[in-house]
Amino acid sequence: MAKPTSQNITWHDANVSAAQRSAATGQKGAVMWFTGLSGSGKSTVSRRVEQMLLERGAFVYGLDGDNVRFGLNSDLGFAPEDRKENIRRISKVAKLFADASVLVCTAFISPYRAGRDACREKLPAGTFIEVFVDTPVEVCEARDPKGLYKKARAGEIKGFTGIDAPYEAPLNPEIRIKTAEKDVDACAQQVVDYLVANGFVS
Amino acid sequence: MAKPTSQNITWHDANVSAAQRSAATGQKGAVMWFTGLSGSGKSTVSRRVEQMLLERGAFVYGLDGDNVRFGLNSDLGFAPEDRKENIRRISKVAKLFADASVLVCTAFISPYRAGRDACREKLPAGTFIEVFVDTPVEVCEARDPKGLYKKARAGEIKGFTGIDAPYEAPLNPEIRIKTAEKDVDACAQQVVDYLVANGFVS
Repeated sequence: MAKPTSQNITWHDANVSAAQRSAATGQKGAVMWFTGLSGSGKSTVSRRVEQMLLERGAFVYGLDGDNVRFGLNSDLGFAPEDRKENIRRISKVAKLFADASVLVCTAFISPYRAGRDACREKLPAGTFIEVFVDTPVEVCEARDPKGLYKKARAGEIKGFTGIDAPYEAPLNPEIRIKTAEKDVDACAQQVVDYLVANGFVS
Repeated sequence: MAKPTSQNITWHDANVSAAQRSAATGQKGAVMWFTGLSGSGKSTVSRRVEQMLLERGAFVYGLDGDNVRFGLNSDLGFAPEDRKENIRRISKVAKLFADASVLVCTAFISPYRAGRDACREKLPAGTFIEVFVDTPVEVCEARDPKGLYKKARAGEIKGFTGIDAPYEAPLNPEIRIKTAEKDVDACAQQVVDYLVANGFVS
């Protein structure tokens, strides 16, 4: 499908700006983009971050691949172009949430730098927080919570990130988490501390 | 594109429920679905509602057709199937926002009952608030803020709602607004009063 071609469309700024929303709500929106291998602990840590922020009364929401795929992206499969569209839509939705002053956690493998950087570039400076869940592939494979590594090794899944498809680790993530060295609470606290130190929540 | 066919997907409840979010934030999410003819005042009233709610410190966000089309739905045109997909995605995004305890205003003509009811059915009971901006077509045409009625009358736009395409008015909207009889503030206040009376915001 092409770009909108109709003339019946006009850009208008929302009357309320993101800055006005932040001032009214006392919270600054941001996207915490968790990235890492399957089994690295992305979802587990991001959900703990969500809980910790809620305990502070913050508005926070988690988008993750499995959940979004049943709703917004239920029309998408797993072919390369569908995966790309999946991430594109999630980036756009995350951006809407951040614009609404909400703190968003997303937890996707998102193996390609280009995909992550595309989201970063679309967000206001400083509001894209790349959280690299830096768990060695050996650890992830030993955990194998969904049995996917086993299937990948058996050749039942092709193009599995970390096995026969690349994972491009972030070069300068805002936050680097080592789930193999710290427990979930300590990892989540690292993210919360970053948000407080940078004025996203009080 | 077909439904997801991969087996590599598992449903898991977010650790945090919508009820827990409401308890933590003191706000209950809802979708205020403004519907009405072009020029009826949907966007104007919904943005005023947004401002009024922000003044109370609420988390509120507005999705409108023109804005969303530049982001999430920039791949969609104006063919019937694209319009349908446009509304489907917006419904899903609005649902995510409501699940996040945010009050969402959407402002689309959304002329078909089936489309609006489809969104209603996907939301928890009571959280879809249909706001019928009930402005007579003669008034909308006299306003004609974008000059679209003129084009429709001249045959330059085909299938224009209210002129040569139907508008199916809501049968039992939660709120009915008469922009031809009251000013914007009074109309917006009607919506805010509804939200307060029904415990969405304090």
